[in-house]
This record gives sequence, structure tokens and C-alpha cells, in this order.
Amino acid sequence: MSTAWSDRFAQRTKTVRSSAIRELLKLTQKPEVISFAGGLPAGELFPIARIREACNTVLELKGSLSLQYSATEGYDPLRDMIAQNLRRYGIPAQLENVLITSASQQALDLIGKLLINPGDRVLVEAPTYLGALQAFSIYGADYVSVPIDDDGLRTELLEQKLRSGPKFMYVLPNFQNPAGTTLSEPRRHELVLLADRYGVPIVEDDPYGQLRYEGEHLPPLVVVDRENLRRDNGYSLGNVIYLSTFSKTLVPGFRLGWIVAPAEVIAKLVQLKQGADLHTSTFTQMVAFEVAKDGFIDEHVKKMRPVYRERRDTMLQSLREFFPAECRWTHPQGGLFLWVTLPEGMDIEALFQAALKEKVAFVPGDSFYAGNGKEGNRHLRLNFSNTKPELIREGIRRLAAAVKLQLVHPVGAR
Amino acid sequence: MSTAWSDRFAQRTKTVRSSAIRELLKLTQKPEVISFAGGLPAGELFPIARIREACNTVLELKGSLSLQYSATEGYDPLRDMIAQNLRRYGIPAQLENVLITSASQQALDLIGKLLINPGDRVLVEAPTYLGALQAFSIYGADYVSVPIDDDGLRTELLEQKLRSGPKFMYVLPNFQNPAGTTLSEPRRHELVLLADRYGVPIVEDDPYGQLRYEGEHLPPLVVVDRENLRRDNGYSLGNVIYLSTFSKTLVPGFRLGWIVAPAEVIAKLVQLKQGADLHTSTFTQMVAFEVAKDGFIDEHVKKMRPVYRERRDTMLQSLREFFPAECRWTHPQGGLFLWVTLPEGMDIEALFQAALKEKVAFVPGDSFYAGNGKEGNRHLRLNFSNTKPELIREGIRRLAAAVKLQLVHPVGAR
Repeated sequence: MSTAWSDRFAQRTKTVRSSAIRELLKLTQKPEVISFAGGLPAGELFPIARIREACNTVLELKGSLSLQYSATEGYDPLRDMIAQNLRRYGIPAQLENVLITSASQQALDLIGKLLINPGDRVLVEAPTYLGALQAFSIYGADYVSVPIDDDGLRTELLEQKLRSGPKFMYVLPNFQNPAGTTLSEPRRHELVLLADRYGVPIVEDDPYGQLRYEGEHLPPLVVVDRENLRRDNGYSLGNVIYLSTFSKTLVPGFRLGWIVAPAEVIAKLVQLKQGADLHTSTFTQMVAFEVAKDGFIDEHVKKMRPVYRERRDTMLQSLREFFPAECRWTHPQGGLFLWVTLPEGMDIEALFQAALKEKVAFVPGDSFYAGNGKEGNRHLRLNFSNTKPELIREGIRRLAAAVKLQLVHPVGAR
Repeated sequence: MSTAWSDRFAQRTKTVRSSAIRELLKLTQKPEVISFAGGLPAGELFPIARIREACNTVLELKGSLSLQYSATEGYDPLRDMIAQNLRRYGIPAQLENVLITSASQQALDLIGKLLINPGDRVLVEAPTYLGALQAFSIYGADYVSVPIDDDGLRTELLEQKLRSGPKFMYVLPNFQNPAGTTLSEPRRHELVLLADRYGVPIVEDDPYGQLRYEGEHLPPLVVVDRENLRRDNGYSLGNVIYLSTFSKTLVPGFRLGWIVAPAEVIAKLVQLKQGADLHTSTFTQMVAFEVAKDGFIDEHVKKMRPVYRERRDTMLQSLREFFPAECRWTHPQGGLFLWVTLPEGMDIEALFQAALKEKVAFVPGDSFYAGNGKEGNRHLRLNFSNTKPELIREGIRRLAAAVKLQLVHPVGAR
């Protein structure tokens, strides 16, 4: 009897970077654990009745077309809705500028596939969204990291980093994942000007832009780029590839996102998507269009915002109430996350274990750094969108107890 | 005013292989054209009422869970159903051996991502499924092609090709796309033995296996591999990675397929899928499970088979009636396609244009070859599943007229 290939498999395939979060999440899914670890929107706000009606309408009106193969580019009425929405902001987007993706994660994968050759540098925020690091690393990306502060990416450090020749920049300007920070308007202008000067495109990831709980809406980078630099050259989307999704404003379970980019970029991404999954589900695209049409999403997020704002406020209030004075945290103007900074010398692994004993979970910050992760050892990401206020308060109380225990018995002292 | 990055884009990105079929399809979608070019299942057979009921049931019983983020591996009851189904064939598959994918195209992409480094050889049939060539080429695959005949892959030519050290073999044993041929049982044994001897895994793509219209079911390679080689070593799926999908037996618009493989292979594919699209639509997985449970697919394909068989028979009959004696074609025992071979010296491009003038369409054979495609110049792929019998007859009559015109005025004579 022979040895199967699969027995020798481990030695014969490329190394794959695992997602710490996905593994951790398994530990935190016990019902007695209050989990701030995930990034889930609040399921109780999903418009189930309207979705149900939309399923029935689509099957009745579109019949077998809604279940058949369809175009790689996406369902045209949905693409058109997204293009129209961009035109409200002065971006003259057309159908040819919009590609429907199997949510933002696929957008990141396709962008990595298109732009990254092994060893190419990608400029990212530190910290940044770990799903982007996962997607880009598979294509052999190296990283150039630029730290953030309360006003987002520190653009005063950007020019020096751009000299190392990154292939593109990946930026989350609104209520960033993981830190919850927002890129200030002056920095948006600076970023766009530097991108143009160095000829480095920006991938702008904006899943949370509609979920602002305070302050004024700031123009996306794609708009700033156009207004600053491309007033007269007819139609061009310039230096910015813009990503968004229905995952946070409608439901994540349909796996629907989109890329807005110059037509020639979209054309190449379409070819790559053909090879990746042929097209995104015809049915979920048609149902999402049926749900979203007539301005429903705008109305729906109006209902979501006060619920999420209350959860954010409860978390901020509880942090002030229970956390030791040595700790700091961000004040997110929107989105799903905030970011806690602990005193130096904390052992984040030990804290994670201690927190689990207290039946509360978070994501350790090291997952969100492109380097070896040591920068993340003092940080935790907390999600507030998927926990009700009374449990948020109790969870933060438990977490504070675990933190205090670690402060009394720090790693160095053991 | 600066030049946008996008204006210089064409020079700065990797070259992408385009899909001839997808471009051609646009020409053939006019309503007056009888198209044998696509690969669509017959929409009029989709079980729309049952799907509608399943949508309502899932939303009622699962509520927001059906619209929320879910596990990368897939929906467990669906994975379990697939594992159970394999156990009927003597494959002791468990949950850990099944990954739900965004249809077979994503399975091919993930396998390419996992196994192919630039310059690695992949052994394919000539001709083979062009979507696989698209998926693998992106990762820098080179190809080793083995010709097929009426009994499928010519295994007597295989050993020599295996000496060149391909990373894996990609094979469609049942009613192959594009040729419609089926790998004979003796060749299945030979293929599996050679794969084992040379330590080269087989990727077995089986989208059409349930759609057999005549003859006996033949065991999939994953079963032959196990029965021949791995009777006593406990649980191992050995040398075969098995792919299938709901796209042909239920609906393609849900984008649902699966990979069955040894647990350690699935574990790595799960990590890659995290980076590719996080997970497949929770909702379409739950709806498909609700539709498919209680043996519905088995009942449903029983209704599909006579309809498709009649279409195949009509196409074969019409070819005999209208086509010149110099032409040959395959006799598919199942599936969606047959493959016509024209006399030498035909100009397939000219024939395609002539056929479009006659208002009938096909896919030129060159798309299905890994090399420069010249081998395909004498071949056309015809789809019979998506056209009603009376139109099949008329379409073949028109196509025969175009072929005869090309025979009277061959390229060399002009």
C-alpha cells in the first residue's frame, strides 16, 4: 500500500498566514462569554421582513433569471444605483466604473491579485484591518507602515515612507478598523496631494462611512482627489480605488461589496473576478437591489445610528467608570470599534487568558500590525455594535478586573 | 493639473488572460441568435416554488443568523449533507473534509492559490475546461497537456508526461467540458495508479456526474483511489481532491460548490478562503440546504435527465441529418456539451462569423487548449442543455449551412 500524497502534504505547499482573530473567535463563542472580539453588526436590526418580501418579489418578477448565471461585472441596476450614489458627491461614475464583489474581502483579494508582485511594498496604517493584511500577504506583499493618531494616518510621516516606492496605499479614513479613528479633513487633502506627487494610488476602504454618530460628514478621498486635482480633465477617477459594502449598512450574509475605479482598472478586475468566482450570487444581488432601492438604506441607517451610538456611549462611559487611570482609548465618531491602549509592559496574551476567565473577550492588538506584531502588545480592539448596553457595561467591568489584575502582577515582576 | 495614476495604469499592472468565451457571449446574446455557446442549465427546470418556500422558511426559522457573518468552512448542516452523500460511495468523509466554496470556480482559484508557484506545471486534458486554465494561469502555471479520445484522457500517454513533474493533474472524468467524453473505468484505475506511483495528486472536477442519460454510473476517481490503494490505512482521502457544485443540479445563481479533501488540505484552503471572501453567502447556503434536504436533489435530477437527454438526442439526430460527412462529433453519455471536429484546414474564426450571419453561435475550440490554441482550430463546443428541441434542430441546420459554405470556400483557396 502506497503513501498518499496527502500524508506528505504539509511539506509540499506554501505557508499560509492564519487569522488570529478567526481562531480566537472560536474560544469566545461560548454563550456565557461577553464578546467584544467580533466585528458583527447587530442582527436584531436586520430588516428581515423587507428582505423576505424582496426574496418573494424577485422570484416572482425575475423568475429563473434570478437563479441563473449572470455577468461578472454584477447586476446592472445595482451597479447603476451605486454609480448614482457617487454622482451625488460629484463623482461622475458610470456603470463601467463599478464592479460588484463578493463583499469587501474579495475586493481586497482582487486588488492584491492585480497589483502585487512578490516583494512589492504596500503602505498601510499601523494598526490596520487584518483582513487586508491576509489578502495582500498571499501575493507576497511587503509592508511600509505609517502610524496613526486620533486624527488618523500621520501624514507628516508619509512623504519619507513614500520614497521607498510602495505600489499602493491602503487607507480606512472613516472610523478605522481596528482603532475607530477618523482621518481629519486637512490630512485628507495632504494625503491626496502626496499620492499624486509620488504617483502612488490609494485604495480607500470605506465600509463604515454611513455609520457616523457625531460630527460632520467628511468627503471621501475619491472626492478630495477629484476636487483638488482633476477638475478639468473630463472623466477620470484619478488616483483612488474606492471600496464599500452592504455588510454594515444592510446585512453581511449576502456577501455584497463593490469597487469603484477608473474603467480600465475595473476591466482588469473583471477578468480576475472571472477566474476567482465567475460572478457574485445573482439572487443576493437582485434581492439586495430590491431591498435597497427607493432610498431604503438611507432610512435604515438612520435607525441604526442611535442604537449604535448608545452602545458606543455606554462603552465609553463604562471605560471611564471601571478602567484604571493608566489606560487610554479612542473616541470613535462612528463605526463599530474602539481601541484601548494599556500601560507599557502589559502581557497581552496573559490579559486575553485572564479576560476569558472573567468571561469577557477582545481581540489583542498584535493582529493588526504588518510587522511582527510587537507594537500591538499594548492594545486591544473592542467591538460595541453587537452587544446590548447592559451587557457592554458588565463586560467592561469584567475586562477592567482582568486589566487591574495584570497591572498588579505585571509580566516583568513574575 | 497632474496626470492621474490611472492614465498610466495599463503599463503598470500584470497582464491578464482574457476569457474568449465571455467576450464572444456578448455577440451571441441577441434574441434572434440560437446560441449553443453558453454553458447554462435550463432555467425552466429550476424549482422556483421550492426555493421560494425555502427562503421564507429560513428567514422565519433562522432569522438574523441567516443574514449574519458565518464560518469560513461553510454551513455545517450543508457540509454534513455532502459528507453523508460521499459516505454512500464508501468515502468516510466527515465535516472536516468538506469546504463550501463560492461555486467550483472559487474551488479552482483556491487550489491554484495553494498549489501553484510561478512556473509549476499542471497536467490537463486537451481540451479542458477554460475556467480552470483562467484560474491556474493567474498563479503562473505552465501546462502539460494530454490528449483525450472517446474514452477520455489517453492514459497510455500519461506516464511520459508525468515524468516532467507536474504539481497536480486536473481531470473532468464525467461528460467533460468541453468534449462531453467520459473517462472509461479501466482508465480510471490506470490514472489513479499512475498518480500514486508518481506522487502527483489529482484534482477531480465533477460538476455533471449526476446528469447521466445512458450507461452505468462509473465510480469517481476519489472512490477508485480509495478502493485500490487505501483499504487499510484508516481514514485518508489519499491522492484526490474532489470538486462538485449545485450549479448544474440545482441553480448556478446561488454560487455554491464544495471541495472534498484530506483534513489538512481543507485546513489550508480555509485559511486561503478567509483572505479571498471570508465566507460564502450564509443565506444561499441555508436556502440551498433547506431545498436539498430530504433527498430533493436526487428527485430533481430524475426530472432533469429526460429533458436534457431529449435535447442531446435532438442535437445528435440533427447533426446526422444536416452536417457534411467529413465532420465528426462526440456522443456524450451525460452533461451539457458535445464536441464537433471539422475537416482539416477550416478557419474557425471565419466559421464563427459565418455562423453569426446565419444567427447561430458556438464556442470555437481554441479556447479550451492550454497552448497557443491552434489545436482547437478544427473544433467547436456545442451546448444542448439550454435550448429547446425545435430550436436545436433549426440551429444545427443553420450551423450546417455555415459549415458547408466554409467547405466550399476553404481558407487555402481564397
